[in-house]
Amino acid sequence: MIIVMRHDATRDQVENLVAQVHARGFRAHLSGGDERTVIGVIGIDPFSIRDVVADAPGVAEVVRITRPFKLSNREFRAGDTHVRVGDHDVGGDSLWIVAGPCSVDDEELFLETARRVKQAGAHALRGGVFKPRTSPYSFQGLRGDGVDILKQARRETGLPLVCEVLAAPDIEALAEVADVLQIGARNMQNFALLSEVGRVRKPVLLKRGMSATIEEWLLSAEYVLSQGNYDVILCERGIRTFETYTRNTLDLNAIPLIRELSHLPVIVDPSHGTGRRSLVSPMALAAIAAGAHGLLIEVHAHPEAALSDGAQSLTPAGFQELVDRLGPLVKALRKPVAVT
Amino acid sequence: MIIVMRHDATRDQVENLVAQVHARGFRAHLSGGDERTVIGVIGIDPFSIRDVVADAPGVAEVVRITRPFKLSNREFRAGDTHVRVGDHDVGGDSLWIVAGPCSVDDEELFLETARRVKQAGAHALRGGVFKPRTSPYSFQGLRGDGVDILKQARRETGLPLVCEVLAAPDIEALAEVADVLQIGARNMQNFALLSEVGRVRKPVLLKRGMSATIEEWLLSAEYVLSQGNYDVILCERGIRTFETYTRNTLDLNAIPLIRELSHLPVIVDPSHGTGRRSLVSPMALAAIAAGAHGLLIEVHAHPEAALSDGAQSLTPAGFQELVDRLGPLVKALRKPVAVT
Amino acid sequence: MIIVMRHDATRDQVENLVAQVHARGFRAHLSGGDERTVIGVIGIDPFSIRDVVADAPGVAEVVRITRPFKLSNREFRAGDTHVRVGDHDVGGDSLWIVAGPCSVDDEELFLETARRVKQAGAHALRGGVFKPRTSPYSFQGLRGDGVDILKQARRETGLPLVCEVLAAPDIEALAEVADVLQIGARNMQNFALLSEVGRVRKPVLLKRGMSATIEEWLLSAEYVLSQGNYDVILCERGIRTFETYTRNTLDLNAIPLIRELSHLPVIVDPSHGTGRRSLVSPMALAAIAAGAHGLLIEVHAHPEAALSDGAQSLTPAGFQELVDRLGPLVKALRKPVAVT
Amino acid sequence: MIIVMRHDATRDQVENLVAQVHARGFRAHLSGGDERTVIGVIGIDPFSIRDVVADAPGVAEVVRITRPFKLSNREFRAGDTHVRVGDHDVGGDSLWIVAGPCSVDDEELFLETARRVKQAGAHALRGGVFKPRTSPYSFQGLRGDGVDILKQARRETGLPLVCEVLAAPDIEALAEVADVLQIGARNMQNFALLSEVGRVRKPVLLKRGMSATIEEWLLSAEYVLSQGNYDVILCERGIRTFETYTRNTLDLNAIPLIRELSHLPVIVDPSHGTGRRSLVSPMALAAIAAGAHGLLIEVHAHPEAALSDGAQSLTPAGFQELVDRLGPLVKALRKPVAVT
Repeated sequence: MIIVMRHDATRDQVENLVAQVHARGFRAHLSGGDERTVIGVIGIDPFSIRDVVADAPGVAEVVRITRPFKLSNREFRAGDTHVRVGDHDVGGDSLWIVAGPCSVDDEELFLETARRVKQAGAHALRGGVFKPRTSPYSFQGLRGDGVDILKQARRETGLPLVCEVLAAPDIEALAEVADVLQIGARNMQNFALLSEVGRVRKPVLLKRGMSATIEEWLLSAEYVLSQGNYDVILCERGIRTFETYTRNTLDLNAIPLIRELSHLPVIVDPSHGTGRRSLVSPMALAAIAAGAHGLLIEVHAHPEAALSDGAQSLTPAGFQELVDRLGPLVKALRKPVAVT
Repeated sequence: MIIVMRHDATRDQVENLVAQVHARGFRAHLSGGDERTVIGVIGIDPFSIRDVVADAPGVAEVVRITRPFKLSNREFRAGDTHVRVGDHDVGGDSLWIVAGPCSVDDEELFLETARRVKQAGAHALRGGVFKPRTSPYSFQGLRGDGVDILKQARRETGLPLVCEVLAAPDIEALAEVADVLQIGARNMQNFALLSEVGRVRKPVLLKRGMSATIEEWLLSAEYVLSQGNYDVILCERGIRTFETYTRNTLDLNAIPLIRELSHLPVIVDPSHGTGRRSLVSPMALAAIAAGAHGLLIEVHAHPEAALSDGAQSLTPAGFQELVDRLGPLVKALRKPVAVT
Repeated sequence: MIIVMRHDATRDQVENLVAQVHARGFRAHLSGGDERTVIGVIGIDPFSIRDVVADAPGVAEVVRITRPFKLSNREFRAGDTHVRVGDHDVGGDSLWIVAGPCSVDDEELFLETARRVKQAGAHALRGGVFKPRTSPYSFQGLRGDGVDILKQARRETGLPLVCEVLAAPDIEALAEVADVLQIGARNMQNFALLSEVGRVRKPVLLKRGMSATIEEWLLSAEYVLSQGNYDVILCERGIRTFETYTRNTLDLNAIPLIRELSHLPVIVDPSHGTGRRSLVSPMALAAIAAGAHGLLIEVHAHPEAALSDGAQSLTPAGFQELVDRLGPLVKALRKPVAVT
Repeated sequence: MIIVMRHDATRDQVENLVAQVHARGFRAHLSGGDERTVIGVIGIDPFSIRDVVADAPGVAEVVRITRPFKLSNREFRAGDTHVRVGDHDVGGDSLWIVAGPCSVDDEELFLETARRVKQAGAHALRGGVFKPRTSPYSFQGLRGDGVDILKQARRETGLPLVCEVLAAPDIEALAEVADVLQIGARNMQNFALLSEVGRVRKPVLLKRGMSATIEEWLLSAEYVLSQGNYDVILCERGIRTFETYTRNTLDLNAIPLIRELSHLPVIVDPSHGTGRRSLVSPMALAAIAAGAHGLLIEVHAHPEAALSDGAQSLTPAGFQELVDRLGPLVKALRKPVAVT
C-alpha cells in the first residue's frame, strides 16, 4: 500500500503517519520527490489499516498495490530512479556503457583491455575476480589476488569498477575497490546475499536469473531495496530456452516491460545474453532501441586467449565500432517527428 | 552438397552436371547469380557422388553443407534473396511494412483500417479470413464471405494482400485475391501444407512455430523451397516461455542469427510476439535495429471492438507514430561512422 | 454451459430443450448416461440463455463451465469415456498396449515385428506409412506403397492398426486398413485436419504438441469432439525443455491432471517422450503408476537398422520384458489397503 | 580422469600414485570399493599425465571421463552410494520417506504433524526454519526461534531432521539439531554455499534448480563432493515450463537418467514438484516406479492453516494412505517375472 501525501503536507504530518504505520506493526519507506512525499507501507495485508491513514491530515490518496513488488513499483515513485556511478547518472539521459573482460586472468591483458575500453568511450569497467562457475574444476577467478590488479586499473583509467560478489565475505574484500557490486544470474534468488548487499551503501547491479520471470526479478530487487539500499540497476542477460544455436536467448521484451512496471534503471548484457560474438553488436543496438539505459559488453584484448567466455568477447576494435554506432542511434530515437 | 561452378562455365557444362546428378537419383536446384551458378544437390548422402562431380568441366568447388538446411542456407546463395511483393523488394534496401487487423470481421471497419494504414505508409495489408483458433468455439474468420471484402480493400487502396492459409483448399479460395500466402505458427510443421504452397507461384510468409528452433524453422522453409518456390519470407512472432506478463516472448536473437545462416528475408511481428500494446512500438524499433527487413503490425481502427487480439492492436494513430520513427532510425543505423 | 436433466426427464423434454437451444443459435451435444442426460450448449456466451432453460420442465441444473473446453470436460460426462478398438475398451479396466516400429520401412522386418509384439501381448499395432519429418530430405514414409504391407500385417496378426494421418487425403487412403487415426504432435493445432477426423467414424489418437499446454491439448480434442466424433484417445509424448541429455521431457504430470479435468482416456508414449532406449521401460512403469490407460511403445525387430528413431526402439525381447512387468504392477496399484 | 587399480594393488602402490598426482598439481580422490580402489584425478586437463600413470605398478586401467562431472559419475564408483541417515541407508534397498510441513510455523501443529508422520511410517522429518521466499514480504521462517521446536520434535519422535540452509551462518545454527542439510532449488548454483556444506560432515540433500539441466545438477553435487563430503542425496522437485495448471512440472525422466549417469541416491518431491495436492500421490507412485530411492512429501496437520504452500500439503490421513500403497508397489516392481 502506498500513501501519497498532499504537496503541501508538512514534515510533521509525514512523521506522524510513519509513526502510526510503525505502531501497527508495518514498515514504512519514504520516497521524497520534488513535489510530494510517498510512503510505502510494507507488511502482511497493509490495506487493513487503510481507513486509519486515509483521513489523516496531509494525506492525498491511499493506493493499494496489487503487484507483489512495492518499492520497485513505478507506482511508488513518480520519476525514474537515477543511480550515481562515478560521474554518471545511470537511468538518466545518456547511455551507461560498462565494458571489460569476463574475468581478470592476466594483469597485462586486463590493463591493456582497460585502457582500450576507456579510450573507446566506456564509462565503467567490468572486473570479476570471483567467478561463479558451473563446474568446480573450471577457473574460479583470481579471488584476492585479483584485487590489486583491479586497483591498478582503476588508478590508471579512472573508470569506476563493477565487481561480482558471490558471498557475504566478498563484500568486505571488494569494498575498497568496487564502485558497483554485481549479483550474478545464479545468485538472483540467493536471498541471504541480496539482504547483505541491501545493507551496504554501494550501487548494486542485479542480473536476471536465467529462468526468472520479470516479477521474480523485481522481487529480488525488492530484497535489496527493502534493506534501505535504493541504488539498484537491473541487467537483462538472457533466459534459458530450447534453442541450441545460441547459449541463451536475450529477452529484450524485458526492457520496455521493466520500464513500464518499475522506476529502476535497466541495462542489457548481449555478450552473455547470446554467447555468440556475431550477435553482440546487433543485439546491443536493438537493446538501445527497445529503451535500455545502458550496456554491459564483454571486451577482451585477445579473446582467443581468455580463460572464460572468449567466444562471446568483442575485440577492442569491435567495441569501438559498436560505440561509434550508438551516438547516431540514440539521436535518431529521440528525433522529434517532423511536422508536415 | 553444393557445386559451385567456375564463372566462365558454359551453359552446357551446367546442364551436363545436372543430368549426372539426376542420373544418380538426386535432385538438383540451380541458383544463377550474376557471377556464377551454384547447384544444390539434394537427397540422401549426396556427398557420395562428390568425386564424380568434382572433376567435371566447369566445376570450381564442391562444398559439403553440414547444417541440415540446404536451399535456405547462406552457403547456397551468395547475395540476399529479394522477394517481389507489389512494387516492393522484400529483403532489399528498404523496410517492408505490413499492417492491418488480425482478422477481417466487419467490412466497414476493415476498409477504414485499410485506408488509414495505406495513408500512414504501409506497403501491404494483412487480411485473415481463415483464422486458426485454439478453441473451436472462438470466432473462426469470415472464410469465403471475407474474400469479397478483401477484393474491395485491394481495389480501393492498391495494397498487396497477405492472407493466411490453413489448408490446401484455402489456397484456391485465396488465389484470386492474395499476393502473399501466410503459413501461421501452428502450421509451421504442417508438412503437407508446406509442400502445397511450395508448388504455388506466390510468395510465402512463414511464421516461426511457437517453440520451434531456428533450425526447424529453416527446415520448414526448406519444404517450400524444395518444391521450387524460392519466394519465402520468414517472420519471427514470439516463442513460448514461462513468462506470464507477456503472451509470448519475442525472440529478436533470431534476426541476426537468421541473417547469418540464411539468405532469406526475415521480418518481425511484435504484435503477436508480445501480445501487449505498450510493447509493440519499442520492440518494433528494436527489431529494425537488430536487422529485420520489415514488420508485421496489427492495426485496428477500433481495437476495443476487435473480435480477436484487440489487446495487441495499435490504433491507426499509434501506427502512424511508429512509422514516423522508423525513417530516422533506419538512416541512423546506416550512417557511416564519422572519420575523426 | 451444461444442462443436467432430472433422471426422470422424458425424451420429449430433452428434445424440446435441444430445439430451444438450436432456435437461439447455439449447438447442443447430448451425453446420455445410464442415469441422466446432460446437454452441452456450445456457442458464444451460451450462459446468456440460462434463464430460458433453467426453468424448463425436466431440467435439474444448469452449470456454467468456465474452463474453455466443454465436451472433453469431466463435468460434461460423469463416467470415463471408453473407446472401443478391436475387442478392447480403451479407458476401461485393463491397459491398452500399442507397439510397433515408428514407420513401415521394410516389409519383412515389419511383419516380423508385428508377430513378435502380438506374441508379447500387444493389443494394437503401430504402422506409420506417412511420416512427418522435420527435414524434407529425411525418409518420408512409404506412403501408398506401405498400405499393402499394413493389410498383410493386420491379416496375419489380427491386431488393430494405429496409423498417422498428415493431411485430409490420407484419411481416405488409410480408411480401409486403419482402426485408429493418429494425429501427431506437429499437427495438434492443425485445426483443418482435426475437423476432418472429427467427421470420420474412427477412433482418433491425439498426441500432445511438443509445447502445448494441457488446456490447448484438450481444446484440440474439442475440435474432434465438436464435429461429432467422441472417440478420442489422448497421448502424452514429451514436451520440449532445455534438457539436452534427452530428446524430449516426458511429462507424466499430464496423466493425473488429464484424468482430473477430462473423461477421455490418456496413454503415454515413452519412446518419443524420452528418445533414449534405456529410459523407455522405467518411464513406462511410471506412466502406469501415474494412472495412464495404456502405452505406445516403439518396437523394432532390428533397431539398429531402422530408418528413423532406432535409438529409442525396444527390441521384441525388451518389449516382452516390459509387458511381463506390467501385470504385477497393475495388480499392486489396485491392491486394497490391508485392514489392520 | 580415473585410475582403476588392479584388485591386487597394494596400499603402497595407491599412495605412491596419489603422491605423483599431487606432485603434478592435480587433486586425487580415492574411492575404495570392496574389490578395487579407484582414484579420481581432478584439475585442468588431467589426461595430460595419462602416460605417467598408466604404466605405474598396480594400475589396471586409466579412463578418460568426458562428461564434466567426475566424482558423481557412475564410472567413478562401481556400486550405488548409500548415505546413512539415522538407521536408514538412503540409496539402499528400501525407500526413504521424508515428511513434514514446508516450514515450522506453529509449535503445536508441528509437533502434531511430526507424531502423525512418524506413526504413518516416515523415516525422517522435514523442518524448515529458514525459508527462501520469492518476496521479502512473505513469511521468512521462524529462524533461530524454530530450532527449539525442532529439538523437541526430534526428542519426541526420534526422527532424523532434514533442514534447509540458506547461508553459511545457518550451518552453525542448525548443527546441533539437523541430521541432513538441505540446499534448496534457488541455491543450487550458490557455489559458495555448496563449498561450505562440502566441508561439513553431514549428509546434504541437494534439490535441483528449477531450470537446471541434469549436467548442471550433477556439477553442483560435484562442488560438495570435491570438498570431501561424499554424502549427497539428490532431490528432483520440478522444473519450470510454460504449463500454468501446475506450479512446476515434475521431471521423472531425471530419475532413470541420474541412476544411469551417477551412483548418488535420488529422491523425489512431488509436493513442490506439482504444487497441486491431487497430483501428489499419483506422482509419488510414479516416482517410485521410475526408480526413485525415496520421497519428500509435504504433510501438514491442518493444510488450510499453513503459512506457506498449504495447497500442496497432504493431510496426515492422505499421507498414511500413500505410504500404505508404497509397500505393494515396491514388491511388484521387484517381483521376478514368472517362468511359464
